[in-house]
Amino acid sequence: MRHFGRLNHVAIAVPDLEQAAELYRSVNGNITTVQELPEYGVKVVFVELSNTRLELMTPLGDHSEIADFLEKNPSGGLHHICFEVENILEMRDQLIEEGITILGDGNPKPGARGKPVLFIDPQNFDGTLVELEEQ
Amino acid sequence: MRHFGRLNHVAIAVPDLEQAAELYRSVNGNITTVQELPEYGVKVVFVELSNTRLELMTPLGDHSEIADFLEKNPSGGLHHICFEVENILEMRDQLIEEGITILGDGNPKPGARGKPVLFIDPQNFDGTLVELEEQ
Repeated sequence: MRHFGRLNHVAIAVPDLEQAAELYRSVNGNITTVQELPEYGVKVVFVELSNTRLELMTPLGDHSEIADFLEKNPSGGLHHICFEVENILEMRDQLIEEGITILGDGNPKPGARGKPVLFIDPQNFDGTLVELEEQ
Repeated sequence: MRHFGRLNHVAIAVPDLEQAAELYRSVNGNITTVQELPEYGVKVVFVELSNTRLELMTPLGDHSEIADFLEKNPSGGLHHICFEVENILEMRDQLIEEGITILGDGNPKPGARGKPVLFIDPQNFDGTLVELEEQ
């Protein structure tokens, strides 16, 4: 039986990345530089907390995966949470066996830090978009 | 200058607490018993992760603070994040000086674990409801 591990990050969609980074710099201090992820249509900044991190995300380009979210939530909002897993393929197969749907084609892709990630359908998970990242 | 500390928890509003607890038990295992917080109009269960925790919340009684949220998000969803602070009154005053609004009367109240908490207006914080808890 596979389990979710650490909470790797909480992702927050924001309309203005520089402004959001400035806000979190004022209350936390540890902010990474802006990183562009054209394959996901987002630019991100990480806020490093002592036990986990926040991922501030804003759309990049015309086909961003978070454009719809920001249309519904123009001020921004909590977008997804990411758990670490030891073996993403075994975890995926266990979830599918439990009747849980994996988004996309079900194959892990490199995430913001190059490690394999998958997303679970929020309809199977209390309306919560959950990312899994292999460590 | 005061800073936010650890991410104490991520709160998820759910329509059915028992079902949500069962789901997280199947992928994590460490679930607390149900706790009723009539002053907030919620019942909660905590999912203990190795570096932080999730707070699964469902309405309790007729005047729940999360009833509106679940009306807009019937399947549930990410509701708020909670940061630890050393001195909640100093942090509050610093935020107010920066033009950030504190919800309610601005006075800390005991949270789910009896420690003083405050909530920041999401309109000042990228649409994100942020709780601060003094440690």
